[in-house]
Amino acid sequence: MITNPVIDAMMNRKSIRKYTDEMPSDEVIETVVRAGQQAPFAFQYGSLLLTKDIKKNPFNAPLLFTICVDSHRMEAVMARRNWKIKMNDLSLLIFGIQDATLMAENMVIAAESLGMGSCFLGGAPYQSKKIIKKYKLPRRVFPLVQLAMGYPAENPPIRPRYPLELCLFEDRYPEFADEMVQRGMQQMDDGYLAQDYYRRAGYQIPLEDERQETYDINTYSWTEHISRKVGQWLRLPEDIIEQLEACGFHVGEMTDFES
Amino acid sequence: MITNPVIDAMMNRKSIRKYTDEMPSDEVIETVVRAGQQAPFAFQYGSLLLTKDIKKNPFNAPLLFTICVDSHRMEAVMARRNWKIKMNDLSLLIFGIQDATLMAENMVIAAESLGMGSCFLGGAPYQSKKIIKKYKLPRRVFPLVQLAMGYPAENPPIRPRYPLELCLFEDRYPEFADEMVQRGMQQMDDGYLAQDYYRRAGYQIPLEDERQETYDINTYSWTEHISRKVGQWLRLPEDIIEQLEACGFHVGEMTDFES
Repeated sequence: MITNPVIDAMMNRKSIRKYTDEMPSDEVIETVVRAGQQAPFAFQYGSLLLTKDIKKNPFNAPLLFTICVDSHRMEAVMARRNWKIKMNDLSLLIFGIQDATLMAENMVIAAESLGMGSCFLGGAPYQSKKIIKKYKLPRRVFPLVQLAMGYPAENPPIRPRYPLELCLFEDRYPEFADEMVQRGMQQMDDGYLAQDYYRRAGYQIPLEDERQETYDINTYSWTEHISRKVGQWLRLPEDIIEQLEACGFHVGEMTDFES
Repeated sequence: MITNPVIDAMMNRKSIRKYTDEMPSDEVIETVVRAGQQAPFAFQYGSLLLTKDIKKNPFNAPLLFTICVDSHRMEAVMARRNWKIKMNDLSLLIFGIQDATLMAENMVIAAESLGMGSCFLGGAPYQSKKIIKKYKLPRRVFPLVQLAMGYPAENPPIRPRYPLELCLFEDRYPEFADEMVQRGMQQMDDGYLAQDYYRRAGYQIPLEDERQETYDINTYSWTEHISRKVGQWLRLPEDIIEQLEACGFHVGEMTDFES
């Protein structure tokens, strides 16, 4: 493992959920955003809403960015060239989510290098209608994710990740041996337990479907936590489809289309 | 605009399409991947396929990563906890694409800091069936994007981006004044023209639908180029829906589902 200031910034990053009330300067904000813009892109689809309302922002962070997949801007450019979007919205979103996320990660790393911290909030797509109203979004802008940012008032440890053997596959995707999966689970669960992560957070996702609780706050860890999210939440696609429709994106099959 | 080594790595990045034949060491590769893994995540859904076939890789790059949205790994973990995925695939993909892309951007920046360059190739989703076969992918792994990487044999200029006024919107999304859009188009088009980008590439997207060509390689620039992509390509959602289905993801509305 090689280190340098850039690698260090990435390896030392952790989500920050407590902030001082120091407002980052305009120059700091501009630096973060310009670093974000310079990320690679397919169509330059990322755009940013910013709120500096420290009293209302999540974690009372001085900055709250809402990172959007912005087709409205592209369509405004195209209209002046006598073009209309024909690419289907699902493909457009797959590219656009990447554009917006590449931008977001540069902002995270830029913030880190400037002494700030940040934390993603993934719920934006499910609050689309509220965000449309708050920021007066035109159609064809999809709020993908929010990013709280500011100077950290906590210094949590670096969180664990899967072992490399479960992430990097040369030439072919392996069949997972049982021990390999077990090692991965252990690295994640022991790692979070050693950091008292869920106990400090005081949060354990409740069980649905009449499942019996067999964990307490001393045994509950990452693999159980994530399993409860993807094993219980957001079952129906209709919810996200409806939110996307509210933003003017239609992801289903086309039964009727021009040319 | 503040600078430091981290900001510089991001501001100086540009896509590299010519590489030396020097193979990065295992330590360099591991550093890049570990930096990628340490990116923030929702569910840790990013995984990586790697091919070191310099003769066959795009741009003859020593490294070709295929960045995947990997639900297979999560489901292997969940099975050992007696859980099954219930989250709908569209929501899962919106989170998973972000996880994979956050990882990818850290890899890009890590590579930059180690003297390497890289270039994204966005076509992977449309070659899913081929990639499944080549890498023996199990179901529930979606190849999102490819990333060529190695030591650069060219040093192109930094590419332009939209002005800040078209990217960062405080408190509300503005109505776009005509001059604002024109300034954005001009910054992009003049920027690419000044760099001879499309002339050097020798590539101009052909017009469909009996449109008449009014550009030549001396006048053709970014806004026209991108307009031709999203204004002509990938019109039918069925293509990407079919590729996703081949990977075992179903993004449409559910007509029939358990519990």
